Amino acid sequence: MARLKPLSGFPEFLPQGQMVENHVIRILEETFELHGFAPINTRAVETMESLTRKGEIDKEVYVVSRLQADEHDSHREKDQLGLHFDLTVPFARYVLENAGHLQFPFRRYQIQKVWRGERPQEGRYREFTQADIDIVGSETLADHHDVEAPLVMLEALERLHTELGFPPVLMHVNNRKLSEGFYRGLGIEEPAGVLQRVDKYDKIGPQAVHELLTEELGLSDAQADRCVALAGISSSDHSFIEQVRDLGVANDMLEEGLDALDRVVTAVNRAVPGRMVADLKIARGLDYYTGTVYETELVGHESMGSVSSGGRYDALASDEKHTYPGVGISLGLTRLLAPVISRGQLGSTRTVPSAVLVAVNTEEERDVSEAVAASLRSRGIACEVAPKADKYGKQIKHADRRGIPFVWFPGRRDQQGADEVKDIRSGDQISADAAAWNPPAADLRPGVVGQW
Amino acid sequence: MARLKPLSGFPEFLPQGQMVENHVIRILEETFELHGFAPINTRAVETMESLTRKGEIDKEVYVVSRLQADEHDSHREKDQLGLHFDLTVPFARYVLENAGHLQFPFRRYQIQKVWRGERPQEGRYREFTQADIDIVGSETLADHHDVEAPLVMLEALERLHTELGFPPVLMHVNNRKLSEGFYRGLGIEEPAGVLQRVDKYDKIGPQAVHELLTEELGLSDAQADRCVALAGISSSDHSFIEQVRDLGVANDMLEEGLDALDRVVTAVNRAVPGRMVADLKIARGLDYYTGTVYETELVGHESMGSVSSGGRYDALASDEKHTYPGVGISLGLTRLLAPVISRGQLGSTRTVPSAVLVAVNTEEERDVSEAVAASLRSRGIACEVAPKADKYGKQIKHADRRGIPFVWFPGRRDQQGADEVKDIRSGDQISADAAAWNPPAADLRPGVVGQW
Repeated sequence: MARLKPLSGFPEFLPQGQMVENHVIRILEETFELHGFAPINTRAVETMESLTRKGEIDKEVYVVSRLQADEHDSHREKDQLGLHFDLTVPFARYVLENAGHLQFPFRRYQIQKVWRGERPQEGRYREFTQADIDIVGSETLADHHDVEAPLVMLEALERLHTELGFPPVLMHVNNRKLSEGFYRGLGIEEPAGVLQRVDKYDKIGPQAVHELLTEELGLSDAQADRCVALAGISSSDHSFIEQVRDLGVANDMLEEGLDALDRVVTAVNRAVPGRMVADLKIARGLDYYTGTVYETELVGHESMGSVSSGGRYDALASDEKHTYPGVGISLGLTRLLAPVISRGQLGSTRTVPSAVLVAVNTEEERDVSEAVAASLRSRGIACEVAPKADKYGKQIKHADRRGIPFVWFPGRRDQQGADEVKDIRSGDQISADAAAWNPPAADLRPGVVGQW
Repeated sequence: MARLKPLSGFPEFLPQGQMVENHVIRILEETFELHGFAPINTRAVETMESLTRKGEIDKEVYVVSRLQADEHDSHREKDQLGLHFDLTVPFARYVLENAGHLQFPFRRYQIQKVWRGERPQEGRYREFTQADIDIVGSETLADHHDVEAPLVMLEALERLHTELGFPPVLMHVNNRKLSEGFYRGLGIEEPAGVLQRVDKYDKIGPQAVHELLTEELGLSDAQADRCVALAGISSSDHSFIEQVRDLGVANDMLEEGLDALDRVVTAVNRAVPGRMVADLKIARGLDYYTGTVYETELVGHESMGSVSSGGRYDALASDEKHTYPGVGISLGLTRLLAPVISRGQLGSTRTVPSAVLVAVNTEEERDVSEAVAASLRSRGIACEVAPKADKYGKQIKHADRRGIPFVWFPGRRDQQGADEVKDIRSGDQISADAAAWNPPAADLRPGVVGQW
């Protein structure tokens, strides 16, 4: 084997990084399950017909084909398979396929890899992990779920902040009805075009958005002024409503959107103060949301863009008979973790799960060490037995290199000695019984160290 | 969306099945980590050069390509990407790529999906999950790891047996040196060809193997007789040694193999009696093992074939400078689970993680129910709030359909009533405080029900 270079865009971790990712995933799973979200996994492939339905993204899809396709393989293009590029398309298909077996409203979480055939660059990956939560109803889905979804994701992100020192987050929220109603109230017939340009507000600034609106869409200066002014409004209390009213646009859909947004921001800020702001420039340009939309920034790292986004669809999925509205939020796990893990900023306290290395006196007494290890494991203490009956100094070094905090010395059979265990960090060594000794709780499992 | 049919060969589960798979994965992870195995995840793709190195399997590989490849994409065939078809090839590549950052012997576990472009049939999948453990050394790897790897896998399988009612297992073990030495002792120059035919012993029987050996390989009747006789030997104690000696073949490599096999079977049966048998027909035909080989049958379901196989490689990986010997075992999780989950034989006790449904008195009092839920969750009790302030009977039905055992009734604000919680299975209803009440431990999380 000659290729020793990593593949660009396909991040992989050393064990000390993988343990961090697993720790984070465990926190997400625990949080989602506490809120009644059930786990599902979908296959990695969807039909190209399903993947390219929404247009615009077909160039990012990885096509999958059998190396030696034969006459049994379908050659109809729509039956071709591709790797999923998000977890929303597969989930929508899963809901339709299994609707008869699901109870609605159906809450699911899904933590899986997705693939995009993009040119790799900082913060962009070809293979990455997403963690999605969605609540989907049959025909209807009550408004209070627009409060529930962000609260669940914020609770998970808050645990990452308080337990692992990740930056705090601020979720920015808007409502498509508010924007669309406002644009329609201004006499604009194609609100989608405006949304897509307002979506660039953070990147290119208000002036440039104004230019796009007048030059590309032919809006009047007065119309563009007010679209840009709307995008500039944000508040964490009710005051955004007055600011919008001051722009003097009247429209029923606008009123509906103002009311809906106010309810979400008020309810979320009551539950978790300071973590959500109404931000009327949030557009989620190309996605097919129909109501509330969410983006989430890491405070102090706003230039990273949104790490967790989502929104409401009036029809997450639909077939001839039924419509399934949904609201959900996706967390970009790899975007959040890969840079800090790859740079070594975050890692686990040891490179192995073992809390104890059981030393081996002689190869003939390896079974004694194995018995000690079995006894420790039966009480939930992870351990490994030294690979070789080296001198103790060498065995201690073996533990040290792995970050294993304790070395266990079984009493020598010929000397009928007692077992001893050494904390190799402090050098403290005490007599111990494998059937009773416990490491300090903080040493039982590897922890996460470093600064996000 | 019109496609409502599942894709053949790509199994997916309903939440109640996914929770079973997750439960099993948790047991595997816990067991592997107790033994000091560290988690890794590798990317889903490898270069075609890497995937087709061993030959024979290229027709099973799924090729991956960007839908709109451009001039930046390499067109050299060896740079093409394919989905990995096992976890051994990626692990070998990972070891070479990261050798400078790993401590040897390096223990890792890896639980991931793999893909094979095979024609789907009963028990064969195009996408399936494997759980692999491997121990890899740098230049050398002591023999005792050939005992360690099967003990770890057997411990995991034993937990599935005792905790979830899976069938008990019997691991069949052989040693390539024993077989090869025996064949060489018979004057056979190409032992690999014999191994590949002996590999069919269980499927086609001793007579047919005899025919293949004489007709396809040109062995004499006497040679074939003894090859078939060797394959027929099995024992869970030392007696296989005498049975082999009785066949009257002398060879140094044979002796080495007999000794190595005896040590593995003796040590494993001392640690977990009755779970391993020396079985000299085990060949692992096409795999490049060089010593111990393992296969594992579910007792009473032998016709399924091996659910967990592996062995030792003198060179799991190697480059110009170094050789990395390894020993490992892979568990076919999907083969083990998908049939029983899909048929509904195994499922979780409820379709959601929630132990409690918090009822809603009126939509105006939804915040009271949310507060109850938050209090329960803060103490680790998964719950969900009823989607609608329906009549209590309807809310109880909502819980019942999900298998949620408890419904919580917050006291009505206007009546200053106390909270009550109802076990909807027994009908028992008691006053309760959300800050103190706990469900019985057995109800805290969904369990697994049914018979494998």
